[in-house]
Amino acid sequence: MQQLQAEIIGVGTELLLGQIANTNAQWISEALANQGISVYHHQVVGDNHDRIYRSFELAKSRSDIVLVTGGLGPTDDDLTREVLSDFTKRALYQDKSALAQLEAFFKRRNRTMSENNRKQANVIEDATMIPNDAGTAPGMIVIDDDTTFVIMPGVPTEMKKMMNDAVLPYLKETFQLQDVIVSKMVRFIGIGESQLEMEVKDLIEQQSNPTIAPLASDGEVALRITARAETTKEANRLIEASEATLLARVGQYAYGFNSESIADVVVKQLANKGLTLAAAESLTGGRFSDAIVSVPGASRVFKGSIVSYSNEAKMKLLGVSEVTLQSFGAVSKETVIEMAKQAKDKLNTDVAVSFTGVAGPEPLEGHEAGTVFLCLYHDEEHYRAEKFSFVNHRELTRTRAVKKALEWLYYYLQSNHG
Amino acid sequence: MQQLQAEIIGVGTELLLGQIANTNAQWISEALANQGISVYHHQVVGDNHDRIYRSFELAKSRSDIVLVTGGLGPTDDDLTREVLSDFTKRALYQDKSALAQLEAFFKRRNRTMSENNRKQANVIEDATMIPNDAGTAPGMIVIDDDTTFVIMPGVPTEMKKMMNDAVLPYLKETFQLQDVIVSKMVRFIGIGESQLEMEVKDLIEQQSNPTIAPLASDGEVALRITARAETTKEANRLIEASEATLLARVGQYAYGFNSESIADVVVKQLANKGLTLAAAESLTGGRFSDAIVSVPGASRVFKGSIVSYSNEAKMKLLGVSEVTLQSFGAVSKETVIEMAKQAKDKLNTDVAVSFTGVAGPEPLEGHEAGTVFLCLYHDEEHYRAEKFSFVNHRELTRTRAVKKALEWLYYYLQSNHG
Repeated sequence: MQQLQAEIIGVGTELLLGQIANTNAQWISEALANQGISVYHHQVVGDNHDRIYRSFELAKSRSDIVLVTGGLGPTDDDLTREVLSDFTKRALYQDKSALAQLEAFFKRRNRTMSENNRKQANVIEDATMIPNDAGTAPGMIVIDDDTTFVIMPGVPTEMKKMMNDAVLPYLKETFQLQDVIVSKMVRFIGIGESQLEMEVKDLIEQQSNPTIAPLASDGEVALRITARAETTKEANRLIEASEATLLARVGQYAYGFNSESIADVVVKQLANKGLTLAAAESLTGGRFSDAIVSVPGASRVFKGSIVSYSNEAKMKLLGVSEVTLQSFGAVSKETVIEMAKQAKDKLNTDVAVSFTGVAGPEPLEGHEAGTVFLCLYHDEEHYRAEKFSFVNHRELTRTRAVKKALEWLYYYLQSNHG
Repeated sequence: MQQLQAEIIGVGTELLLGQIANTNAQWISEALANQGISVYHHQVVGDNHDRIYRSFELAKSRSDIVLVTGGLGPTDDDLTREVLSDFTKRALYQDKSALAQLEAFFKRRNRTMSENNRKQANVIEDATMIPNDAGTAPGMIVIDDDTTFVIMPGVPTEMKKMMNDAVLPYLKETFQLQDVIVSKMVRFIGIGESQLEMEVKDLIEQQSNPTIAPLASDGEVALRITARAETTKEANRLIEASEATLLARVGQYAYGFNSESIADVVVKQLANKGLTLAAAESLTGGRFSDAIVSVPGASRVFKGSIVSYSNEAKMKLLGVSEVTLQSFGAVSKETVIEMAKQAKDKLNTDVAVSFTGVAGPEPLEGHEAGTVFLCLYHDEEHYRAEKFSFVNHRELTRTRAVKKALEWLYYYLQSNHG
């Protein structure tokens, strides 16, 4: 069977001005690779009729599937529909049903629909429409001789939903995709990237199918196992064998797979054990709570938290004693322990975490930016409190403190204390 | 003077597999834009001789300057030098001086140089060599008829250093670049993208220097004014004139410039007016507090918040009455008003915002996912509470609720009530 060749075109002058990176191309490339569709080219063109037209011409000359993002908005710079209509020599007309959906979208949000939004209901003759539940512009699939064009919005969340809900299933069915490429990510926490890589270096170097690739992100690291086979079942079997070898070496640090976040796993384990969680946040300012609440089903385990950003709030809301604050300061082990204890008591939960420190850039109470005290509290006999020195970078320090707390919770729940 | 057209080619199969995003193209695009060089195309090709060759062919046919990143490594997949040699029909030979520099690089780092590294000292006849102080592969500038090819490593830090230290100065001098391009972004909130564009449509269409481009992001919209002139001073003067015209039309929605976020502006205005803020968050789960705390200096205005995720927390921590919760539900106007009032009283601030709703995906109390009640509260006579229907998307709904609260706060502070 001839190998399917795909191409991705990003439309938008903001891409050529360097204002944003073409992350859509990356995401789509990976999604197609997982379907066994090879991407051979990316193009980026600006909001210019002639150049978009030529990009379609070039793509058609060499690719079976062309995915286009951008240029579906309501403004005069948005030309993708018009150019595709010209290029494929098919009429562009205003579709009643698409217009009705667009009007309903605005009505539901109590927003006024502008005159120029109407062009987003323009549809190409014989196109397959792809609904956009997360935005205004529907996508379209247009078959032009031997090339399939798919046009989608440039907004990443809208494009991804459209790809996952409609485009990928369409491609899979239409092209009866045979070879599959399957990837599985194994996620680790509590071990550094270089140490992990050293533990499995020989496995990474030896393997050709599956391949193993390390990926690092903030405060955690993953290994991506990628296998290619004729069936998903066979690919998964290859992956399982590889995964078993990896876990035999470094499994004690593995917490989850694929897109499971450490927060997902922590919430799930709290739920499994029937435990509840509260928090008291100072420098993290709600970011830890946000991470927990982002997990669907968090309400089973998370009762709430107190963002005691000021000392006044620490005393009045949390009940941290003035004596503690005066004797040791807000940024201290004593204070962070009291914060956690109070949060646990006030919210009546099984465990609580607390954060206090110096986000920066200014130092505070003699502590430099990046200093964080963290506490995980169960009861008077079972708690953990430590000081960390993160970086002089407000954002990174706050994020790393949150990640560290999730790491502590994870290992706490793994042990018998949970 | 004829407008210089540049093109950027990213070489690397990992880009086509979606393993990394083409951030090099973004960075280079912005760097060139600042020099007054217009980028009209991006291409990405894999590690394949034929396709790289054709990408050079295409680029030469339409661009004056072609910048290529990637494919300069020591492996067999690294083909850029070889292909450029073939394409420009110039010999590739091993340069003694380049080899000596390479050997010195490895020696300095106590690393062994592999046999395959030697090809990184291969040089194209008549090329201008660009030293790479941050890595192994030198770059090259090759002039082929009317097109200037610049080949550089794909490693971002190495490429950027090479661009800043050698390539940009070379381009500036060679092409006697006179012009500078300066951009300024004007940021708006409280008006939709299509409506804003309609208000300034004629200005967008008329203007050629500066140009005005609309950019939308979640819950807000911006206009980017880009001017080209011989000096930065002159460019800024053009921008100011254009900005004045825009603000005369839609200035009432403008809140900031360039990278100022709405949270930055809200915190600054609260500080200017000597006002303090608290919050009570349910579905937003700390995300609003996080947005405020992310602004340096937030401690001047933000005392803290209560993330009352459970009804128990709403009653015990916030003091929302059980009667209200039983009569109207947690997701109601009555409850959100009481939450804000209680947060304001307990934290003793001038204003408070509160959020309650249904993040989803499940409906709650008969309200569908995306339903949010928001309240901005000053006192019994001065408060605002409304219901919104956002989208059935947990993340987006929570983010939009936060953005809407910031919008309300902004306009509240703009009026005399602040």
